Amino acid sequence: MTTNEKIAALRAAAKAAGADGVLIMTSDPHCSEYLPGYYNALPWFSGFIGENSTLVVTQDRSALWCDGRFYVQADKQLAGSEIECMHAGSAGVPTVAEYLGSHFADGQTLLLDGSCVPATIAKEYIDALAKKGAALKSQDVASPIWDATGERPALPDTPCELLTPAQTGATAADRIAMVRAELQKAGATALAVTGLDCVGWLLNLRARDLPCTPLAVAYALVTMDACTLFIAPGRLSDADTATLAESGVTLRGYEEIIDAVHALPADEVFLVDEKATNYALYEALTAHKTVAGADPIFALKGIKNETELKNLRECHIRDGIAVVRFQMDLEKALAEGKQLTEIDIDTMLQKRRAEMPGYFEDSFSTIAAYGANAAMMHYHAEGDVNSAIEPRGFLLVDNGGQYDCGTTDITRTYPVGPLTDNERRYYTWVLQSHIDMARAVFLDYCTGFALDTFARGPVWAHKVNYRCGTGHGVGFISGVHEGPQSLRPNNPVIFKPGMTITDEPGIYETDEVGIRIENELECVDLGENQYGHWLGFAPLTLVPISTEPVLVDELSRDQINWLNDYHAHVYEMLSPRLNEDEKVWLKEKCAAIGR
Amino acid sequence: MTTNEKIAALRAAAKAAGADGVLIMTSDPHCSEYLPGYYNALPWFSGFIGENSTLVVTQDRSALWCDGRFYVQADKQLAGSEIECMHAGSAGVPTVAEYLGSHFADGQTLLLDGSCVPATIAKEYIDALAKKGAALKSQDVASPIWDATGERPALPDTPCELLTPAQTGATAADRIAMVRAELQKAGATALAVTGLDCVGWLLNLRARDLPCTPLAVAYALVTMDACTLFIAPGRLSDADTATLAESGVTLRGYEEIIDAVHALPADEVFLVDEKATNYALYEALTAHKTVAGADPIFALKGIKNETELKNLRECHIRDGIAVVRFQMDLEKALAEGKQLTEIDIDTMLQKRRAEMPGYFEDSFSTIAAYGANAAMMHYHAEGDVNSAIEPRGFLLVDNGGQYDCGTTDITRTYPVGPLTDNERRYYTWVLQSHIDMARAVFLDYCTGFALDTFARGPVWAHKVNYRCGTGHGVGFISGVHEGPQSLRPNNPVIFKPGMTITDEPGIYETDEVGIRIENELECVDLGENQYGHWLGFAPLTLVPISTEPVLVDELSRDQINWLNDYHAHVYEMLSPRLNEDEKVWLKEKCAAIGR
Repeated sequence: MTTNEKIAALRAAAKAAGADGVLIMTSDPHCSEYLPGYYNALPWFSGFIGENSTLVVTQDRSALWCDGRFYVQADKQLAGSEIECMHAGSAGVPTVAEYLGSHFADGQTLLLDGSCVPATIAKEYIDALAKKGAALKSQDVASPIWDATGERPALPDTPCELLTPAQTGATAADRIAMVRAELQKAGATALAVTGLDCVGWLLNLRARDLPCTPLAVAYALVTMDACTLFIAPGRLSDADTATLAESGVTLRGYEEIIDAVHALPADEVFLVDEKATNYALYEALTAHKTVAGADPIFALKGIKNETELKNLRECHIRDGIAVVRFQMDLEKALAEGKQLTEIDIDTMLQKRRAEMPGYFEDSFSTIAAYGANAAMMHYHAEGDVNSAIEPRGFLLVDNGGQYDCGTTDITRTYPVGPLTDNERRYYTWVLQSHIDMARAVFLDYCTGFALDTFARGPVWAHKVNYRCGTGHGVGFISGVHEGPQSLRPNNPVIFKPGMTITDEPGIYETDEVGIRIENELECVDLGENQYGHWLGFAPLTLVPISTEPVLVDELSRDQINWLNDYHAHVYEMLSPRLNEDEKVWLKEKCAAIGR
Repeated sequence: MTTNEKIAALRAAAKAAGADGVLIMTSDPHCSEYLPGYYNALPWFSGFIGENSTLVVTQDRSALWCDGRFYVQADKQLAGSEIECMHAGSAGVPTVAEYLGSHFADGQTLLLDGSCVPATIAKEYIDALAKKGAALKSQDVASPIWDATGERPALPDTPCELLTPAQTGATAADRIAMVRAELQKAGATALAVTGLDCVGWLLNLRARDLPCTPLAVAYALVTMDACTLFIAPGRLSDADTATLAESGVTLRGYEEIIDAVHALPADEVFLVDEKATNYALYEALTAHKTVAGADPIFALKGIKNETELKNLRECHIRDGIAVVRFQMDLEKALAEGKQLTEIDIDTMLQKRRAEMPGYFEDSFSTIAAYGANAAMMHYHAEGDVNSAIEPRGFLLVDNGGQYDCGTTDITRTYPVGPLTDNERRYYTWVLQSHIDMARAVFLDYCTGFALDTFARGPVWAHKVNYRCGTGHGVGFISGVHEGPQSLRPNNPVIFKPGMTITDEPGIYETDEVGIRIENELECVDLGENQYGHWLGFAPLTLVPISTEPVLVDELSRDQINWLNDYHAHVYEMLSPRLNEDEKVWLKEKCAAIGR
């Protein structure tokens, strides 16, 4: 089927259902950032392969909204189809709600699959339509069309496993008790857990349903006296089912969540997070009493416990060794004059990580970006998009692994030949930003926004900025992007000991160069004195940072000290597990610098 | 009358009015920070001379609430009276509202003067009383008692004047138009202007009704087609009355504001700022339609216009010359071995400021604090409290002037003899904090909270903090503390060019030392590039900073450059108006430092 034929099929299905249009968005029942293929209907219908998009089909037209990252790509991928490309956020371009308001008339109906749209968004569209006397109806007309072609991926059904308390430091029962305490504080008695990362944290449940993110497609329902896991039958072993039963967790089918909610007494008070709840489920929840508020699991899982931190530190030793061995491989290959491409870099790294115990997959698609490619923050070499590494300038490598003891995320920017003065300057400023964040000492009232300026100071001094956060939270054997903490403008979350965060400032000059230096940091308690409770950061990542490009005179004494201390720590932590050649190599890379 | 007799008189007056208690707080009809004596009834009745306090008298007891700054003082000043001292914020101490809730019963009545209490607070008390079936009645029973003694200060009646557009860059008509535009944006049509600084800004009105703050006790009322100034008759000259009339402003008696509000049509929509409106006026406003929101004048007057900035720069040249001459006087007196006290310092400074054209009073009571006295942030030498300056350690001097071209606020900490290692370290860290704030370059989305961390970084690195903001806004020929911008945790105001702010980090070690270095800064536009719109600060204050105590090795190259550039600028701006001896002296004080 061509795109226009697919759109025509949607149009016909709407008409057959007595409606006037169909809306499809890139979302799933769990309001996920990354979707299982089964739920990713929009690319199949539209031909646009990007994130964060909405397709609206009416009886006489169709339109697709994309955000600024995807304007060029969407224009290209929609060319030749009837779909109008809407550059969301550009001047003169209506929002989806505005478009619905002007293309639906009194008595008309728009169809969308309420189970695949966050409640906040569905409610916005209902309001926009209601102003014109039009209505929204929850009905999934896309699936039958897609299913009939045989081209739709199956609902994920990978093997599930339970992490052990030795890995996570808590049983499901422990975590259910934490959630119940939060519900009580909020004046609620029940919670439908929808985020796959939240379900995973609550019940120690993991699977391989998503690429790079070892989670299972499932829901959980917590009340004051019961907890139910909703998951496709047969996915858990009998042993794991018994382990969950010991924590008071019973199993039901994945699709049964809405019936289970309806079956609860009317005086059950649900804590409802509209942004994280699909509209179909939201309608079921709001048949009970409700209290509005964020799912408390977001805040709980943002702080790692002692066992998770201990395991994470081990994880970073393993990951550090893999990356050190990759660095040696790279140096050797370049010295031998081997022709390498960006995809080769990815392959070399995966090989070294695969040698490490407990590694089972990457935590995201490696960004190996040579030269000006690195100025594109989310560049990924694949297929024809694959530059050769030339013997000059920088190679940026951003990647990470999923291990049985944690999740990693690290970026280094390697000099692969002579550097320009600008390249050295930019590298030095980024390093200063990285260090100033890592060495910050602060009182326990600081939000991500307040701390973010520590990192930006050194690049801002040169009127340079990076158009992204300084860092994000990282899940534990889970998603590589997990909040609620982040280092970025307007983040209101107050930092607490046990939070982990990436520290990844950069400079991205279009068509010229991209530089990023990223460690994961652990927020640590530095004790109390008469001024209050002090916090700081300790690096988790254990990989040398290239000092060759650094303009040492630009660094302050404190910055030099931090870098030398960090390198001494890297050597101390990794060397006991390295062979003699590796130790010699690492010792040199970790040598102190000074003026 | 003794305190107990005054309390008994209040109690009797309540009974005579058919009520069961009286509440008096340190506030006035304008919700001022500093009160005209006429409105400051609480100290007269209670004997407690402090700020931010509330007195509650019932038929069988009386209690006074004070905040943490005043616990010791209040205990002392209430000793011997029947009044129970309540340490507000301490564990186990009820709030005023809680106290009212437990000391008033069904059918009882509390009296307070609604015209002297912010609406937010009156409403809180009404709620607390209502829960017990008790009620609040607005009636002023204190004034008759106080008036009868002849001890009450008169309502201020100092000469009023209008600043000229050459001073403020705007006529009253210009500013009324700015306010009307803001009312329109807020969906309102009328505003009762209650803050004395807001009335002063709106109508260019100044007087000497308050110490150190050249404002007049008055209200204004702005609608879309009229503006009225409410002020005691005869306070403005005929010429000034005519000037206001040209801007469309008519005059009425001070007390007539409430009648004037009632006389407006019911469909007038008032923008109401509950925190800035007294309860009596609030009741009149809410007889109309209302929209809740901050008085837009706060935000408007926070940004100085080009004329105000030009005048301010001139003002700081004059103030800088006065302080430089004071510094020379101090150095000479110390060299001659003269015995000086803190009060002598204040006198010496006032003499030098009084020589400057356009100076008419100090902008606040000088803080001249020697040695450990400076660890008390709001120390003020007066009467018996007056230490001698010994030939060792530091002398902190924080003061400022009111001129016909602006308001100043400056702190310097002078070495007056040998320093300890700790004193040098603390001084150096405070200087680093001051410089890092002053040289910050930032994007135009930064709030006061986000910027505040720039200043704290250098002292936090040593686990030291100052328990106050880094800086506050300053009025223009007005209050020395005027927001809405400030550099402090949780301040949400986004910085904009034309805002002025103090930069005054410090270190205060109890019984040891207090150090503060304060300049006023102007927020300046640093232009746009591909990353956005850049802002920074330019120093307004032009006075050398003692370099003798500085541990130069602790400073970064950028910090040293800032200090040397600043001193070169001070010399360039002040020297053309100095005599030869002064120039030689200043040249030496402004000499570049380096390593």
